[in-house]
Amino acid sequence: MRGAIIHGPGDVRVEDREEPQIEKPTDAVLQVSAACVCGSDMWPWRGIDETKDPSPMGHEYVGVVEQIGAEVTNVKVGDFVVGSFMASDNTCEICQDGYQSRCLHGEFACPTGAQSELMRVPLADGTLVATPGQPDDDLIPSLLTASDVLGTGWFAAVAAEAGPGKTVAVVGDGAVGLLGILAAKQLGAERIIAMSRHESRQKLAREFGATDIVEERGDDGVARIKEMTGGYGAHSVIEAVGTQESMLQAIHSTRPGGHVGFVGVAHDVALPGDALFGAEVHLLGGPAPVRRFLPELIDLILKREINPGKVFDLEVPLEEIAEGYKAMDERRAIKALVRM
Amino acid sequence: MRGAIIHGPGDVRVEDREEPQIEKPTDAVLQVSAACVCGSDMWPWRGIDETKDPSPMGHEYVGVVEQIGAEVTNVKVGDFVVGSFMASDNTCEICQDGYQSRCLHGEFACPTGAQSELMRVPLADGTLVATPGQPDDDLIPSLLTASDVLGTGWFAAVAAEAGPGKTVAVVGDGAVGLLGILAAKQLGAERIIAMSRHESRQKLAREFGATDIVEERGDDGVARIKEMTGGYGAHSVIEAVGTQESMLQAIHSTRPGGHVGFVGVAHDVALPGDALFGAEVHLLGGPAPVRRFLPELIDLILKREINPGKVFDLEVPLEEIAEGYKAMDERRAIKALVRM
Repeated sequence: MRGAIIHGPGDVRVEDREEPQIEKPTDAVLQVSAACVCGSDMWPWRGIDETKDPSPMGHEYVGVVEQIGAEVTNVKVGDFVVGSFMASDNTCEICQDGYQSRCLHGEFACPTGAQSELMRVPLADGTLVATPGQPDDDLIPSLLTASDVLGTGWFAAVAAEAGPGKTVAVVGDGAVGLLGILAAKQLGAERIIAMSRHESRQKLAREFGATDIVEERGDDGVARIKEMTGGYGAHSVIEAVGTQESMLQAIHSTRPGGHVGFVGVAHDVALPGDALFGAEVHLLGGPAPVRRFLPELIDLILKREINPGKVFDLEVPLEEIAEGYKAMDERRAIKALVRM
Repeated sequence: MRGAIIHGPGDVRVEDREEPQIEKPTDAVLQVSAACVCGSDMWPWRGIDETKDPSPMGHEYVGVVEQIGAEVTNVKVGDFVVGSFMASDNTCEICQDGYQSRCLHGEFACPTGAQSELMRVPLADGTLVATPGQPDDDLIPSLLTASDVLGTGWFAAVAAEAGPGKTVAVVGDGAVGLLGILAAKQLGAERIIAMSRHESRQKLAREFGATDIVEERGDDGVARIKEMTGGYGAHSVIEAVGTQESMLQAIHSTRPGGHVGFVGVAHDVALPGDALFGAEVHLLGGPAPVRRFLPELIDLILKREINPGKVFDLEVPLEEIAEGYKAMDERRAIKALVRM
């Protein structure tokens, strides 16, 4: 089978690879219908995260179950499934509390890579959710977003306690930030402020529900948010970048007692204790427990109440996936879809 | 009048000082009945916080209203009052949300110092709470704790979402940590683990409701908490120290999705973003909004349902307050009370 392998910065190749097999009785093997390139894939692509050995890429996927291990009972061969990027048993206390991305027995869901024709998924029963029947083809992109980028934006909005009567600010206009806007809108937020400088992203932000755009960043961005909120700051702030500047921008844009949901994978962040102590905001973040939200998100997508698939503004065949990486790195594309 | 002034490390003197006056129509002047020495007073005493100019000390107080400004209506001359260390209007949106320590118009409540015969309190209407009549003399120490150390421990327990069915771990066995234990017990926590190495503090911890004691610190302490909680970590962790080690000990002792309430004033803390991202815990902390809890805490104390005044194991007259600082610095005393 064919699958994407990263060899080093800027070097993702599609190669002939061994087909993944059932290794444990709790595994499933999927025929991948669609996968995509994640903002976090940019870290090794850019060489910010080191690639020590050639590694399979991709952790967002929808597909059809091709094989299941002997203990798998929740999905069957032929099911169309969406899964999280983190495998979880969905039964331990952490999973039951809704933090499946930190399952006590959890592991990475895509050890063989999702940017690939076939993939193995561990803990299939707890990780995968089957759709009722085969979905319409035009819904595939939206269902694919549920496996990470939508679930992550959704978690950020939930962690930030976006809801009725709330003013929500969103730091980061990548796909996660944009889908955080969509989530905040669905959760009933009154006012949603997108912090973005890019016209095409501002446009999508407005389509997803942003009521205001702020182009300023850093201290200027914070001052603007304060000014727009009677000096108080936003009730809820979504952080979807992962840098020191974006984290502090998010924390300082939040009113005391307000909530920050941070989902940008942290890179070289060290939060000063006095800033955190002085801000007095609720902070919650980390790898999104996508599994918690999958049934609800799949339902909203199948009912066509949300259209998160709009974040894909580039589609490439698997063989040309490197172009997807390149376009995202150069910010020519928000997010690249790969159909197999 | 006589009042305590710090001149530099280890140098607190009681001096003749000018009597505080009403400066704004929202001020009150109190005759201080009792004050005390705070763990945070140790920072300038030890020279870790620099003392640039001689400064009045003390921010925990109970007393009798001696004068009020023209606009003060909630307290009257002769009332016995308890107040927070932060002055608040108690009407802005932040106050209404229960974060009075970060009131939009807030300021420090003790500009003239509470370790003093008289003190001026700004924003008296929003800051002070009168008791119904003069309290019994033996309740004065407990009422005094409500003005900071109890309110702070209580906030930490509330921020950590201590409650029925929860396992709560407490990092720090100073007065705030000990009163965090008392708060967790009152809030209905099932199991309360005090992290302490000092026999006298362990004893008080147990009196206040601790069910378990852990003597290990740092990574060993974290490992012990994990071991005691089925590998998961505590649901709720109170951090009452304010160092890098104690913050990381608190964060890593908490299960994913659990809650950390941190109230130790941060000193040289820089939280690594990846540790925070990986831990996936709720974090909330800062200067405690003591005012939120005052009516409830005063009520519990007057009904003699709690006895937080037990944290005072040393009482000194105002003239000998330096001995209170010294005893706390040397950990000979948990907390020193000063009666005027």
